[in-house]
Amino acid sequence: MLFGGIEAGGTKFVCAVGDESGHIKEKVQFLTRTPDETMENVLTFFSTFNVNAVGIGSFGPIDVNPSSETYGFITSTPKTAWQHYPIKQTVEHALHVPVGFSTDVNSAALGEISLGAAKGLDSCLYMTVGTGIGAGAIVKGHILDGLSHPEMGHILVRRHPDDRYLGACPFHQDCLEGLASGPALEARWGKKGVELANQTEVWEIEAYYIAQALMQYMLILSPKKVILGGGVMHQKQLFPLIQSKLVELINGYIQLPASLSDYIISPGLGNDSGIVGAIFLAKQAYEKLHP
Amino acid sequence: MLFGGIEAGGTKFVCAVGDESGHIKEKVQFLTRTPDETMENVLTFFSTFNVNAVGIGSFGPIDVNPSSETYGFITSTPKTAWQHYPIKQTVEHALHVPVGFSTDVNSAALGEISLGAAKGLDSCLYMTVGTGIGAGAIVKGHILDGLSHPEMGHILVRRHPDDRYLGACPFHQDCLEGLASGPALEARWGKKGVELANQTEVWEIEAYYIAQALMQYMLILSPKKVILGGGVMHQKQLFPLIQSKLVELINGYIQLPASLSDYIISPGLGNDSGIVGAIFLAKQAYEKLHP
Repeated sequence: MLFGGIEAGGTKFVCAVGDESGHIKEKVQFLTRTPDETMENVLTFFSTFNVNAVGIGSFGPIDVNPSSETYGFITSTPKTAWQHYPIKQTVEHALHVPVGFSTDVNSAALGEISLGAAKGLDSCLYMTVGTGIGAGAIVKGHILDGLSHPEMGHILVRRHPDDRYLGACPFHQDCLEGLASGPALEARWGKKGVELANQTEVWEIEAYYIAQALMQYMLILSPKKVILGGGVMHQKQLFPLIQSKLVELINGYIQLPASLSDYIISPGLGNDSGIVGAIFLAKQAYEKLHP
Repeated sequence: MLFGGIEAGGTKFVCAVGDESGHIKEKVQFLTRTPDETMENVLTFFSTFNVNAVGIGSFGPIDVNPSSETYGFITSTPKTAWQHYPIKQTVEHALHVPVGFSTDVNSAALGEISLGAAKGLDSCLYMTVGTGIGAGAIVKGHILDGLSHPEMGHILVRRHPDDRYLGACPFHQDCLEGLASGPALEARWGKKGVELANQTEVWEIEAYYIAQALMQYMLILSPKKVILGGGVMHQKQLFPLIQSKLVELINGYIQLPASLSDYIISPGLGNDSGIVGAIFLAKQAYEKLHP
């Protein structure tokens, strides 16, 4: 059995084929251009394989409501060429296979719970802190969605008392993404995160916001594992800071796992969480039709 | 088929028996005293019925992890007589029937999705604003829990600029419960909510905090229906205020349901959400053993 995965990002697309255990056999990536150009690259790659199904983990917002007329569309993205683009249908019509569809972060959560750092559990949360902030979750073995897919990057946080930066979110100004994304960090300090690795005040403020987010996610979802990916999280000094700030914020109210360094962790699949998850989205779409 | 339900509250216990469609046949309530006294009342009530299973929706925190040694216990509650009390086991040993077990708010969410305001959906959130604040959720037909049960009442909120009240939470001072519970409202204004019904500034501040909570719940969980119960929510003037503040806070970022007054609503079962949910917890426990 061969499954195709598409990690559809705003900057780049990754395509892969893998077997039913999720192991990648071949993988390519290319820059995200117009839908026509990009999808031609995608379909050319898959044309040389006989995949049984395809999974798409996409940038968003996307329509994940199967009863909606625009199910399978990328919807109101600021990338105007991709607005209202029927990505799921495009793949279905070209390849004539079932197509699974979810957000990029849900796909990464599915990858991590299937083969990565949350393997063997039935619940986890995957958060990315990079160009944007987002998170996806698996609850009792299923991708979490409801009215729509979560948009966990835009929750409100309290400002750090030493933070004078106004915030970068065009909708909420100083929500989590507005204060703690990679671009917000760069705008606050005038340099990229990698150039600020030794400046403790930079990571104090960053960790304060991420710890607040984790507090909200824990109190609302109670995930069994928290996986932090994305470019900003390559600054590994953030992990102990986030852990200690989380302990302070929770202040003994709920019992935290004995070892927070085994609970709040880096992706087990490195940069492949999303693409591996997309292969499992394909497998789920196939199994839904062939129970 | 006959199922028993126990709504175990910090102030009062409600016990009922109902049929497999959740309709209550008989219901009693009594004040919560010591575990021995209270459970004697509970078991006396059930001794006259031949129930096939019992469900308990309990005040907490409780241990909902089936692989834990203290599964089925009320754990670190401030009600000292009830600390580390094995409520689930007590009922099992006395009645020799399967016992379902969850939090009071999860039970209420289950009641509302089974027979109440969220009937027919596979997802909802039930929030109570009263002596305390808590919320439970159903996700894809299942009660939401993970590492433990959610504790959604203690999420952080931003203070209202006109609010001088310091907050009542012994753990977090000015978290949601610390600022917006019934006792917090009474401490802020020196009067009970019912005596303040016509003072707009009271409900402005209250609605601001509840709307923030709903924003976080929506961005993280995306429930298909939001049900607001508890004593404070008897002040119906809160509903339109919460709706308009939520629209302001979200600021167009996610698509809200066309009619917020059909989305953010009062319990369909009135005060019976929790006890009806407990009957469905019993039914689930029974069906797990007799699939």
